[in-house]
Amino acid sequence: MSEIYDVIVIGAGAAGMTAALYSARSNLKVLLLEQGAPGGQMNNIAEIENYPGFASIMGAELSLKMHKPLTKFGVENAYGTVKQVKNQQKYKIVITEDMIYTTKTIVIATGAVYKRLNISGETEYAGKGISYCAICDGAFFRNKELIVIGGGDSAVEEAIFLTRFASQVTIIHRRSALRAQKIIQDRAFANAKIKFLWNTIVEKIQGNERSVTQVRIKNKQNNADTISCKGVFIYIGLNPFSKPFLNLEITDKNGWIKTDANMKTNIPGIFAIGDVRKKTLRQITTAVGEGSIAGQQVYLYLQEIEN
Amino acid sequence: MSEIYDVIVIGAGAAGMTAALYSARSNLKVLLLEQGAPGGQMNNIAEIENYPGFASIMGAELSLKMHKPLTKFGVENAYGTVKQVKNQQKYKIVITEDMIYTTKTIVIATGAVYKRLNISGETEYAGKGISYCAICDGAFFRNKELIVIGGGDSAVEEAIFLTRFASQVTIIHRRSALRAQKIIQDRAFANAKIKFLWNTIVEKIQGNERSVTQVRIKNKQNNADTISCKGVFIYIGLNPFSKPFLNLEITDKNGWIKTDANMKTNIPGIFAIGDVRKKTLRQITTAVGEGSIAGQQVYLYLQEIEN
Repeated sequence: MSEIYDVIVIGAGAAGMTAALYSARSNLKVLLLEQGAPGGQMNNIAEIENYPGFASIMGAELSLKMHKPLTKFGVENAYGTVKQVKNQQKYKIVITEDMIYTTKTIVIATGAVYKRLNISGETEYAGKGISYCAICDGAFFRNKELIVIGGGDSAVEEAIFLTRFASQVTIIHRRSALRAQKIIQDRAFANAKIKFLWNTIVEKIQGNERSVTQVRIKNKQNNADTISCKGVFIYIGLNPFSKPFLNLEITDKNGWIKTDANMKTNIPGIFAIGDVRKKTLRQITTAVGEGSIAGQQVYLYLQEIEN
Repeated sequence: MSEIYDVIVIGAGAAGMTAALYSARSNLKVLLLEQGAPGGQMNNIAEIENYPGFASIMGAELSLKMHKPLTKFGVENAYGTVKQVKNQQKYKIVITEDMIYTTKTIVIATGAVYKRLNISGETEYAGKGISYCAICDGAFFRNKELIVIGGGDSAVEEAIFLTRFASQVTIIHRRSALRAQKIIQDRAFANAKIKFLWNTIVEKIQGNERSVTQVRIKNKQNNADTISCKGVFIYIGLNPFSKPFLNLEITDKNGWIKTDANMKTNIPGIFAIGDVRKKTLRQITTAVGEGSIAGQQVYLYLQEIEN
């Protein structure tokens, strides 16, 4: 029989790395599974100013700093995309495209992905003026003109938030009305700093070698135009990375994994943390908090079943 | 009338500093009140290995790193010991020994204090072999002999945890029986690495200039002895710093402040985070997670009452 892990952590973002750290520091046998580079969403962030301990740090650098010490505590790393998880009698099984792992517990830390527009400039200017998180990046844009793309709750709420810094925020929406709740819409309409462009799509994000300078737009009548701006906030949707776990029935109808305050899902021995979890705030700070709780809970769960 | 703050954060530990950071980055008017040096409990920790982003860092250094950037975002700092908080009609009042502050919201982040033995060597070797947190420091003591002082749930649970690293753990208890739950006691009695010394007190913690080497003990029959050890874990109690808030009726019977997952207490506009909060795990990671949630919730609360 192949070796049996105390815990397999799926996803090596801030949440998963912290769960692995805490589990390993409890002297457990830990496998950290990741399909890309360690760091997850952090790797897409140019400058982080809201993770305490660092006045400012590049996302990729923080990812490395979080990952490096794990080996010292005995965390094993493996690459692989998880296809399915099975909750069997005694053990749990994690199936990737080319491996089958056996483990006593699982911590799901697969994160979430922001929907992309898939337009020219979106990849090029990611972290150079394009953001998917107003609470993270709003403060970088004091007295600047900003674009928000979208029409749902998040788009409109974050546009309102951004007016605390920006000189002007233009919400560009492809329909003729917002989908956001009425009360949020009312606040946006009452806000003198917010402008609206209806029935309009952004075709292209343009800039110089350092940052975004303008967007190319087109409305339903096919009239094209250019709007100058320093930042573009894209809020067209956030999707949890939970497809491989849908068979476990631990998600809500939108795919977010439901847990209690100790990160326990409905299935004993399976925990979920970080952006994939149903919650209100998705930050590096909350990810590491949840990771440490899951690490401790894994240890306590094993105490229960093994003693 | 004196100036009115959007939020006063009481306590500048990891939780409070993060709440101040997030509030300030939402462009709010923030006062951070502290009665000592910024950092709180972190200042008592020699080496931190479980805050992701740092392989290892001194507690005092991490405190400074967390505190320094706050000014840039406009956080005001003030020194003072809070005597009382009043929840009035429109504003909340924070009373220190020599000042009265007016604010729209309050974040309580006053922490907790470990009960001390008040014996010789306890201050001298704090962070040099004396610890109040097995989950934080256990991994430093691989194959070492350790002492745990206490007889309640925490003492016995943490002694069991420490056997994952230590070669031997001696629980020293001043009574003839443990207070811990039966199931926890049974696990400890069944653990070959755990020894017990009953009816015994530790009189003195001794060492060389770098770390603890032994403790002087005395039993009820007044027999004195010396036990060599590399670490001493003291678990004789943890008390929340919540006396100034008891009038608000937001605590449980032991003084821990009760909140929901968004850090809201029973009183609208008053939040609690960090070690003072009723919860299962008290770590820097959980402190910063809760701090960021409180920072965002303060902004959302102000949106509600002001619009």
